[in-house]
Amino acid sequence: MQSELIHSVVKHLTNGQPPRVWSLLVTVFGELAQDRDSRISGLLLRHMSGQFGIKPEAMRVALHRLRKDGWIDSERSGRTSTYFLTAWGRSQSVQASPRIYEAHPAADRAWLVMTNPSRPVKFDDFTGAWISSNMLITSALPDAEELFVTSLNADTDLPGWMTNKVCDDATARKSRAFATALGATKQRLGAAPRLSILEVAAIRVLLVHSWRRIILKVPALPDFVFPETWHGAACRERVSDFLIHHPKPSLAELEHALTTSADI
Amino acid sequence: MQSELIHSVVKHLTNGQPPRVWSLLVTVFGELAQDRDSRISGLLLRHMSGQFGIKPEAMRVALHRLRKDGWIDSERSGRTSTYFLTAWGRSQSVQASPRIYEAHPAADRAWLVMTNPSRPVKFDDFTGAWISSNMLITSALPDAEELFVTSLNADTDLPGWMTNKVCDDATARKSRAFATALGATKQRLGAAPRLSILEVAAIRVLLVHSWRRIILKVPALPDFVFPETWHGAACRERVSDFLIHHPKPSLAELEHALTTSADI
Repeated sequence: MQSELIHSVVKHLTNGQPPRVWSLLVTVFGELAQDRDSRISGLLLRHMSGQFGIKPEAMRVALHRLRKDGWIDSERSGRTSTYFLTAWGRSQSVQASPRIYEAHPAADRAWLVMTNPSRPVKFDDFTGAWISSNMLITSALPDAEELFVTSLNADTDLPGWMTNKVCDDATARKSRAFATALGATKQRLGAAPRLSILEVAAIRVLLVHSWRRIILKVPALPDFVFPETWHGAACRERVSDFLIHHPKPSLAELEHALTTSADI
Repeated sequence: MQSELIHSVVKHLTNGQPPRVWSLLVTVFGELAQDRDSRISGLLLRHMSGQFGIKPEAMRVALHRLRKDGWIDSERSGRTSTYFLTAWGRSQSVQASPRIYEAHPAADRAWLVMTNPSRPVKFDDFTGAWISSNMLITSALPDAEELFVTSLNADTDLPGWMTNKVCDDATARKSRAFATALGATKQRLGAAPRLSILEVAAIRVLLVHSWRRIILKVPALPDFVFPETWHGAACRERVSDFLIHHPKPSLAELEHALTTSADI
């Protein structure tokens, strides 16, 4: 059963549209069961999904697909099952975590790099954005020859046709909507909300999920190379503010709270 | 008749290949008769041309072509003719003079400018070089929107594929050959050469002519954005050194020297 508080928060954070189950479960595993040997009970998964308005049948389908794709595996114990990330699923989750959970921008320096047009160079897309076929804004200087490199900073006047390559319109719009939703959520929760650990876990998953779907779409670059329509800095600040003030409950605590809760 | 000194200097400065007559005469008019109302006698033109190894018939053909192209005009007075730049010819000559005669680099600042690839901008080619379809190195900041601009200086590490667009290989090679020829000429002339004003005029024309055909092929940019193979700075220094120490004789002096010379 969804608590009235969670119902309202979910509504703010999802704009009324239920999140895609498969993707949301990836966030749940990443948030709660990234440690080796962490296992989530079917009961807890059902409870979490229910909080987000996901039907048990939809969850079962998503779990099946996650297992088929090699993200998770499961083990029966008696009449119930436990679920856990595979080694590959964990590695994916571990790789993405710093960008998602970091309270500070992923980079504080950036360079504009131009490569010899007749000699293509391969760069890491995670740390940079291609502006054109031989021009890159990057936070990690590539180890290549024949480059022109100029340092960018907060005072550099970057035209829109460049910053738009760092973050597309759709993602910028999402960041704005999410920043607004985070503001509304904060107001709804009040200054010092009294949340159960199950509520904390649900809200954390929801914040991390929405934020993950924005921040992983953009390269690890300082905010000053983003377009003016990007509200990622506000999102990052509000998400990490909640995460810091509402530390992650342990899986054991959550499982315990669930089995003793009157809600279930 | 060519003096032995001029013969040797001409050989150094032309690498044994006689200069194109039409083009050389443009230099002669620009050097000696750029002022309004300046006229050069056929006698003086023949003498100058002879110094450079140009036959009278070749000179007549070139004068005819210059007149046909609107560069010069002529006027008969008695049995001889005088020649002078047309208004258009003078304007061409005046426009080119600063770059040719200036003892200092044409610019001491430069910027790398990038324009929105989907919105082409027109710039002045005299003050800049296109690196690619939307990238320019320029000494005159264009008045346009949506530009990315970064300042370049002597410490900026510009890759070869950029500097090669400022000055092509052929022009760079010419600058090196000319710098070498200027060194050899200086040695031939000695520390304090005793030159007649007709010799001064001939050597000045020759230096200006060779230098013009190099410096006008490249944009007005500081030396530090040129490729390492560019020896223009040395050329500029040596040319202007000679020009300063051997001021331009007036046309009247030259005509007088010619009519009283035992050579003729």
